[in-house]
Amino acid sequence: MKQPFNVIGQNKARVDAVKLATGRGTFVDDIHVPGLLHARILHSPHPHAFIRRIEAAAARALPGVHAVLTHEDVPRVPHTPAGQGFPEPSPYDAVMLDHKVRFVGDRVAVVAADTPEIAARALELIAVDYELLPFLFDPEEAMKPGAPVIHDETDCSGVYDPKRNIAAHLSASIGDVEAGLRESDLVVEREYRVQFVQQCSMEPHITISYLDEDDRLVVRSSTQVPFHVRRIIANELQIPVRRIRVIKPRIGGGFGGKQEILLEDLCGALTLRSRRPVRLEYTRAEEFHAARSRHPQIARMRCGVKRDGRIMALEMRVLENAGAYGTHSLTVLSVTGSRALSLYRAPHIRFEANAVYTNLPVAGAFRGYGAPQGFFALESLADELAEALEMDPIAFRKVNIVREGDSPPIAEALGEGREGYPQLIRSYGLEECISRGAASIGWSRRTPAPASLSVVSERPLRRGIGMALAMQASGIPGVDMGAASIKMNEDGSFNVLVGATDLGTGADTMFAQIAAEVLGVEVNQVLVYSSDTDMTPFDPGAYASSTTYISGGAVKKAAEQVREQILQVGSKLLEIRPEDLRCEGGWVVATSGEKISFADICLSSLYQKDQFQIMAVASHLSYDSPPPFAAVFAEVEVDMETGVVRVIKLVSAIDCGVAINPQMAEGQIEGAVTQAMGYALTEEMVHDDGGRMLNQDFKNYRIYTAADMPELVTILAETYEPTGPFGAKAIAEIPIDAPAPAIANAIFNATGVRMRQPPFTPEKVLRAIRERATI
Amino acid sequence: MKQPFNVIGQNKARVDAVKLATGRGTFVDDIHVPGLLHARILHSPHPHAFIRRIEAAAARALPGVHAVLTHEDVPRVPHTPAGQGFPEPSPYDAVMLDHKVRFVGDRVAVVAADTPEIAARALELIAVDYELLPFLFDPEEAMKPGAPVIHDETDCSGVYDPKRNIAAHLSASIGDVEAGLRESDLVVEREYRVQFVQQCSMEPHITISYLDEDDRLVVRSSTQVPFHVRRIIANELQIPVRRIRVIKPRIGGGFGGKQEILLEDLCGALTLRSRRPVRLEYTRAEEFHAARSRHPQIARMRCGVKRDGRIMALEMRVLENAGAYGTHSLTVLSVTGSRALSLYRAPHIRFEANAVYTNLPVAGAFRGYGAPQGFFALESLADELAEALEMDPIAFRKVNIVREGDSPPIAEALGEGREGYPQLIRSYGLEECISRGAASIGWSRRTPAPASLSVVSERPLRRGIGMALAMQASGIPGVDMGAASIKMNEDGSFNVLVGATDLGTGADTMFAQIAAEVLGVEVNQVLVYSSDTDMTPFDPGAYASSTTYISGGAVKKAAEQVREQILQVGSKLLEIRPEDLRCEGGWVVATSGEKISFADICLSSLYQKDQFQIMAVASHLSYDSPPPFAAVFAEVEVDMETGVVRVIKLVSAIDCGVAINPQMAEGQIEGAVTQAMGYALTEEMVHDDGGRMLNQDFKNYRIYTAADMPELVTILAETYEPTGPFGAKAIAEIPIDAPAPAIANAIFNATGVRMRQPPFTPEKVLRAIRERATI
Repeated sequence: MKQPFNVIGQNKARVDAVKLATGRGTFVDDIHVPGLLHARILHSPHPHAFIRRIEAAAARALPGVHAVLTHEDVPRVPHTPAGQGFPEPSPYDAVMLDHKVRFVGDRVAVVAADTPEIAARALELIAVDYELLPFLFDPEEAMKPGAPVIHDETDCSGVYDPKRNIAAHLSASIGDVEAGLRESDLVVEREYRVQFVQQCSMEPHITISYLDEDDRLVVRSSTQVPFHVRRIIANELQIPVRRIRVIKPRIGGGFGGKQEILLEDLCGALTLRSRRPVRLEYTRAEEFHAARSRHPQIARMRCGVKRDGRIMALEMRVLENAGAYGTHSLTVLSVTGSRALSLYRAPHIRFEANAVYTNLPVAGAFRGYGAPQGFFALESLADELAEALEMDPIAFRKVNIVREGDSPPIAEALGEGREGYPQLIRSYGLEECISRGAASIGWSRRTPAPASLSVVSERPLRRGIGMALAMQASGIPGVDMGAASIKMNEDGSFNVLVGATDLGTGADTMFAQIAAEVLGVEVNQVLVYSSDTDMTPFDPGAYASSTTYISGGAVKKAAEQVREQILQVGSKLLEIRPEDLRCEGGWVVATSGEKISFADICLSSLYQKDQFQIMAVASHLSYDSPPPFAAVFAEVEVDMETGVVRVIKLVSAIDCGVAINPQMAEGQIEGAVTQAMGYALTEEMVHDDGGRMLNQDFKNYRIYTAADMPELVTILAETYEPTGPFGAKAIAEIPIDAPAPAIANAIFNATGVRMRQPPFTPEKVLRAIRERATI
Repeated sequence: MKQPFNVIGQNKARVDAVKLATGRGTFVDDIHVPGLLHARILHSPHPHAFIRRIEAAAARALPGVHAVLTHEDVPRVPHTPAGQGFPEPSPYDAVMLDHKVRFVGDRVAVVAADTPEIAARALELIAVDYELLPFLFDPEEAMKPGAPVIHDETDCSGVYDPKRNIAAHLSASIGDVEAGLRESDLVVEREYRVQFVQQCSMEPHITISYLDEDDRLVVRSSTQVPFHVRRIIANELQIPVRRIRVIKPRIGGGFGGKQEILLEDLCGALTLRSRRPVRLEYTRAEEFHAARSRHPQIARMRCGVKRDGRIMALEMRVLENAGAYGTHSLTVLSVTGSRALSLYRAPHIRFEANAVYTNLPVAGAFRGYGAPQGFFALESLADELAEALEMDPIAFRKVNIVREGDSPPIAEALGEGREGYPQLIRSYGLEECISRGAASIGWSRRTPAPASLSVVSERPLRRGIGMALAMQASGIPGVDMGAASIKMNEDGSFNVLVGATDLGTGADTMFAQIAAEVLGVEVNQVLVYSSDTDMTPFDPGAYASSTTYISGGAVKKAAEQVREQILQVGSKLLEIRPEDLRCEGGWVVATSGEKISFADICLSSLYQKDQFQIMAVASHLSYDSPPPFAAVFAEVEVDMETGVVRVIKLVSAIDCGVAINPQMAEGQIEGAVTQAMGYALTEEMVHDDGGRMLNQDFKNYRIYTAADMPELVTILAETYEPTGPFGAKAIAEIPIDAPAPAIANAIFNATGVRMRQPPFTPEKVLRAIRERATI
């Protein structure tokens, strides 16, 4: 199926490489807006309280203050800021500004002033009389009778069970798990817990809004979802969609955190109130306590296996901490179950899950979107099962893994009867990922745990090797749709307008490569513009690993239509049938060798004969969502006296179908591994007993950076996905799922200690080692 | 054929009304560009000279100067700045900066500096050693053997006969004029001359250029032809089209003067050289001497008629003064002949024309584009013929005028064998224009000339009534093409992207009305964006009265495709066949009464089922160019002692097909009449014997303003043009053609004095009265 490509599969320089490397890319902040006001948000200092009274007169009277908004000043429109398709599956449990606060960091008021300093001073002048309410942080406590109720408003909708603080609930099963467990030779039951962590985009959330010459609200925002922003804030601000224009310039990372509408509504409301341009940016501390994070989950796993390793029954019960608002809780849960429980064939599968409100900061979308949580549990469990069966972990997995031609039934069960299910696996590189990854890490060196002690530099260091698998998806089947518009210029170049959102991922380059491949030109002949709700076609935005597969598919379709038009014009000019012509190197070339340049084609089409603009628009919706696969291998070294875990080498073998741009795909993998290393080893949002985050800076919240990284190996085990553009599947999320369990499994292999709750800090590892006392 | 319309034919407020009325529309200058440099052009003080040497070192050394360009610094690419389709019919007789100057005001050098003052000082520091050449201003002299040769470069192409200074030549004939004259009962031979006049846009030519984040050259310009600007300056600057983006914001008038590329090339070259944003604007004086004007013409007419008034033969020989460069000379000549000589049926017609270079400022495109010149001659002649035949001027015309179903043969002969000829007249309101106009002016009161003297306030005043007819076209048939892209938003609104260029004409409003009519929504549901070469489809620009007919046709086609998609979605959702559905008031309504809102249609199409972006692109090319018609009537009062002519009332009866927006159409008529009044009575560019313009300001060059205007009556004698969007033809140019001859004819009717050369200044009128001595 795979054809020889001219542009696809080549490491083309990113179309924005020069401007980013030279500091000339224009981000939200890189425009001059005369008369710009600076906004600041007053956040709740309490985890749970009613606002009895709020007095903003003194703040409003402060010279230099142009607008102060409290819940008394804005429309009360229940919505979800999740930034999803419509109607959103997430509960409508938020309003722009409420008379109740539900976590330390919740919105209380917002101010726009001439300077940030005046805005900060104005915040101090807002007097809020809080009626403090009992609060809770523990999701298990939250569900108990008599627990404080966090969302008791009657106008919230979509909340599964507000009285028990259950934001969302999911339940699906295949076969009969209890029967399966009875048939099993061995049943293992384990609990895994994952923590609150943050996306930590280098560019924080930032929005600048202003009124244009038509008094329309222009929102220039660092967002993953410009079209959702437009629709959602139109509803919140109670103005028509057509009165809003959302522009996404260059973005400094999103990772799901910029899928939610955190600033655009407030910023827009301030502009509407003050009729002035307003800038609103989160500080790094606000990024931690007021933005979004990955959902903590408690996963209770039960698995029954036969002696030969065959999984008979697999049960996963998840309790998810939503924090104070539901946003992505339901859909994240769904991904946890549908990804993790699709990896292994089992006749009996059950998934039960609740997302529960607490008075902690809000969890939301984060790269992987439930899958990192699910695979940490599943792939730790798989390692424990292999250990219990005294099987090689790879061998155990090979007995059970999903195969080409399979249609994982749990995904269908969780697909809620939507079209597109069952999802047939047509491209399948998991076995190749396993074998190439194993070869790279040197799996054959691995000994059963615990590894023999090697004292290096007089340190008691143990080395171990672990691995984990994962699968993800490529967009939401039957839900998200991409669209593109392409027109031809007189020099044979093309303008591509897409609503899809390059967050720094390289999506614009990928689009340019797809269009260039179809049209037979160099990448520099394709000018990609994204995204601007006035100019570009609709796109749901950058999430769910959909951009290459869905939006790229739209670009390919539009380019094919443009190519068709080019060949028609070429056929007339050359007087040769279109079927004997092809596009190559900026020329229409006949099999006979005659040719005409694209420039001449376009000049003729615009100026000379049967004139028309060579141009096409196309939409692309897929009922398929082919899974990319990953096999990740880690070698670690554990200091048995200090608990310090050092990752020596990390191998990611990924099947993303055909990599449109292998170097960019590798970049995605390396970036994901960097985030996964922090998840596994250092990152955790810590809150005090009043719900205040204790480590809301990069000194105390330790992320991995390039300097901290081990030897990284990335392997693209390419397959050809027949439903994807030029054989492509997704790459964005899959590499983040498996490093944490691979490292946990490697720690076990090194030490015999099973770490079931990241991050694997020295304290926790050392405590575990000591409890086991097997040094 | 005419259907009842919901939006078409209504006086909808202009979509830019509020921002223009409140001063918030953003014109070229209304953006903040940090680091902007100010450019000034060094113009030639000599009418004809070689530049022996040019020394710019001192200017370059001046602190604050960032770039100085002379002919030594820029590519020498012969081209025409005419801003036409490609390849341009106009001669390629210009380069960006030349080593020769051909008129006072020709480009010598250009400077960009921190301030306008520094730029002006730098110009003074450029030392130019000119070798003065003999020069000529008289087109008749220019053709004589031995005359100085103005364009002797070997790399000029398209010049008809450079040795005789003939820039362009046209010749066409129908039948045998000499035979027709022999068959006639009366032959009249007359010569008419029209002068240099200027478009006088309130906003002068202005361009701001800068490099964007991708180092692409962005040209923000007050232009009628953004796509031609892009193509032409790409060639001049020798960079690919894709490296240039041209943006047209709000424009303060064009009238043809902004069809030419006067500043964009120099401004762009300065930006490329300095890597800084550069602003280049003409002063009012530069507008006069360095921009463009209407071509002066000498028209020698011969006409033979039968006693009953039938025209047997009509000959027009035109000598056109091109000024120093050819630009629009050829095509303006072609319009002179094809419009004027199409008005009357005659078995024998001949047109002979030469455009001749002189060392005067350059004539170019000006509303009417040759037709005002042609109709001044023709309609003065018609009056003289009627007088000679002792016929009522209307009666004489009615014998001869073109009729519905005619295909004027001279237009075909001048159409040079292009497709689209003959041009069949399908909509025809000329007779209605005549009768309604005559009724409005009170034609029945008219007495044969000279009118009886009426002494008012002790002044010897004579009143007279005159009339004239005209016809124009609607775009260039088979040549110019429009394109539009339309997408639907979730509130049932639509974004329309068009390359067509609203110059202040109201084109954007017209597009919104066309789209709104097709889609069954209010005008405020349609957001029109024009124009931006990166974002909008190609359009040749605003010229040749093509915007409504051609580009409006494209908007209509795209809207119809969008409507089709809306009905398809509506059909699925309502489960009713599309043929039983219509779009009305923002709803899809079934004949049965069931309905669904556009918002729900769009939400479903984007989010819920078989998702796609409701969106279409369409191009529109017409091989028709239906003529609009005009009958203009003037009543004047002439002071026989001072020669002062006062227009008492001016009636314009226009057939523009269906007026999309009658109020805007009337605005076009009133504006055109205002320009025509100046043309007839006050305006003339006067040059001294060194070729220097003597009256290059509004104190000495008198234009008509609102305060100067007589009673104006505008009559829309609407017809239904079956090939136009909703029955529309063109309105932009037709009303400027006939006022001058109508006024001349009224002066004759008042005084018995025949004025054959505007402007009819008191001096000239008085001299004519005295020469005739008939007071």
